[in-house]
Amino acid sequence: MVECAGLENRSPFTRTAGSNPAPSAPMTGPFVHRFRVRYHECDAQGIVFNANWFTYFDVALTEWFRVLFGSYGSLAERGSDVVLAETSASFRGSGRFDDEIAIAVGVESIGRTSMVVSYTASRDGETLVEGRTVYVFVDPATMAKQAIPGWVREQLEVYAIG
Amino acid sequence: MVECAGLENRSPFTRTAGSNPAPSAPMTGPFVHRFRVRYHECDAQGIVFNANWFTYFDVALTEWFRVLFGSYGSLAERGSDVVLAETSASFRGSGRFDDEIAIAVGVESIGRTSMVVSYTASRDGETLVEGRTVYVFVDPATMAKQAIPGWVREQLEVYAIG
Amino acid sequence: MVECAGLENRSPFTRTAGSNPAPSAPMTGPFVHRFRVRYHECDAQGIVFNANWFTYFDVALTEWFRVLFGSYGSLAERGSDVVLAETSASFRGSGRFDDEIAIAVGVESIGRTSMVVSYTASRDGETLVEGRTVYVFVDPATMAKQAIPGWVREQLEVYAIG
Amino acid sequence: MVECAGLENRSPFTRTAGSNPAPSAPMTGPFVHRFRVRYHECDAQGIVFNANWFTYFDVALTEWFRVLFGSYGSLAERGSDVVLAETSASFRGSGRFDDEIAIAVGVESIGRTSMVVSYTASRDGETLVEGRTVYVFVDPATMAKQAIPGWVREQLEVYAIG
Repeated sequence: MVECAGLENRSPFTRTAGSNPAPSAPMTGPFVHRFRVRYHECDAQGIVFNANWFTYFDVALTEWFRVLFGSYGSLAERGSDVVLAETSASFRGSGRFDDEIAIAVGVESIGRTSMVVSYTASRDGETLVEGRTVYVFVDPATMAKQAIPGWVREQLEVYAIG
Repeated sequence: MVECAGLENRSPFTRTAGSNPAPSAPMTGPFVHRFRVRYHECDAQGIVFNANWFTYFDVALTEWFRVLFGSYGSLAERGSDVVLAETSASFRGSGRFDDEIAIAVGVESIGRTSMVVSYTASRDGETLVEGRTVYVFVDPATMAKQAIPGWVREQLEVYAIG
Repeated sequence: MVECAGLENRSPFTRTAGSNPAPSAPMTGPFVHRFRVRYHECDAQGIVFNANWFTYFDVALTEWFRVLFGSYGSLAERGSDVVLAETSASFRGSGRFDDEIAIAVGVESIGRTSMVVSYTASRDGETLVEGRTVYVFVDPATMAKQAIPGWVREQLEVYAIG
Repeated sequence: MVECAGLENRSPFTRTAGSNPAPSAPMTGPFVHRFRVRYHECDAQGIVFNANWFTYFDVALTEWFRVLFGSYGSLAERGSDVVLAETSASFRGSGRFDDEIAIAVGVESIGRTSMVVSYTASRDGETLVEGRTVYVFVDPATMAKQAIPGWVREQLEVYAIG
């Protein structure tokens, strides 16, 4: 039975990702955020304007944090926030209006105060854009760098790649 | 059992709206498009930037047309497109990041070549923004005004208000 | 001699608008903000996406307030801010990438706590979009409605239309 | 005498950049595009949303191409267009509403069919964001890769860095 026509987060991973898998049960995959390309996100060439892919990555991060921490806001309430240090994208294909896009999110590496998150955007299994962002953890009160808290690190490691 | 964490179009109306209700069975309500406010859609005051409400209306129209015609694109393929003639919005409250917004879409009036669509955006039952847009039907090949085709009119009338 | 390739505010009005014209010297015209359409502001049809016109109006307001009050920020610092109550636009033509757009700003009416501002966007003298926005003055500290201060009202009246 | 209140391209470089400097007269600097941060480009933190920096780079490219080729459109009319292959940004500081931003554009390298363009965004001499984009030249008719035409290469080399 399908109850929902929407695309947002309908991946099965969103259901299991937040749970605490037993050590012997490796994750079956990354977090996947699904959505449709909106009309105004395309430019005069009829394709998703390049900067909008970074917006999509940001939205995917928000939805991933919802699974990890309840919401992006609750992470900050518990004393941690992230700021972007670097971001990049490599374009292999184009998205078009109304396309169903899936963005897979994974953690490439976790340091003491920062992490590298990778994003792979695809349509029907064809990779369109690959992105990577370095986030630095900060104390929301002072915006000073912060060692990643243990409870945060634990959640992030569930999505470690390779 | 919850199959779907997403908010997009999960209204029951999206399931029944496209069907052909018997004359004696009036529609139980308007089409409702649901979504979350994205981070970048808020401005420095922390609230949805005013112009973004018009983008939301556009997205709601797209989702409504999906129910009515299969997709926005398929309407054009069948020989009809719409262009905006006028639009307005009245602001009663503010949307904030991660808010769950519902936009109810209804048809206020249908003329020979145009229609007036109303949008009511709310959060938890509180109306935030009311909008109204006049769309003119055109032939996508020539962009000349077009009498609304019968099969289109029939679908639109299902959502007639008052 | 042309010193400046840019379009922003190069209207002569921006030079004189902030001055205090003698009663016998009527304003020669409205404030005009000039700019080029950016690539990403156009949609897949190759024209300015409708919601972006409201963004343009907002930018025009900012530039107008710069002339009136030094900057938008300085108005708030002196104890007044504006919030949108209503806005509307009527579309007569389309803007395209790299078009030079001029937006004329005028005050239609000034009430005790609110004003109606009109915007006329044109390209080479051809009107493309007409807009109108109702702004309510508020105390930035409390966001409560505020009677428009005398020094603000005086400046606004310089741009009163008809 | 100040003829122009605007910020767009008011750099002296925009006046001389398109000329053909004698070999003994090295360029005095890169192309610089200047603009103000618009209100809606800032997010709820009050700073320029990360994806908008890529939009700014795109606008700077357009203004640079205006100097090089008359306009972005005229490049395509003469048989060449560019598509993004990769882009990246490194964030050192934040832009805020109404800030005057300068983006310096330079060519890091020119290959047979592609070039690497660097962008340095600053405010009052303080570097905020550094970007780099790989553009591939294509035939606008077929979108197939194209060797960079000689007349294009000649113009680009004027802005070669180091």
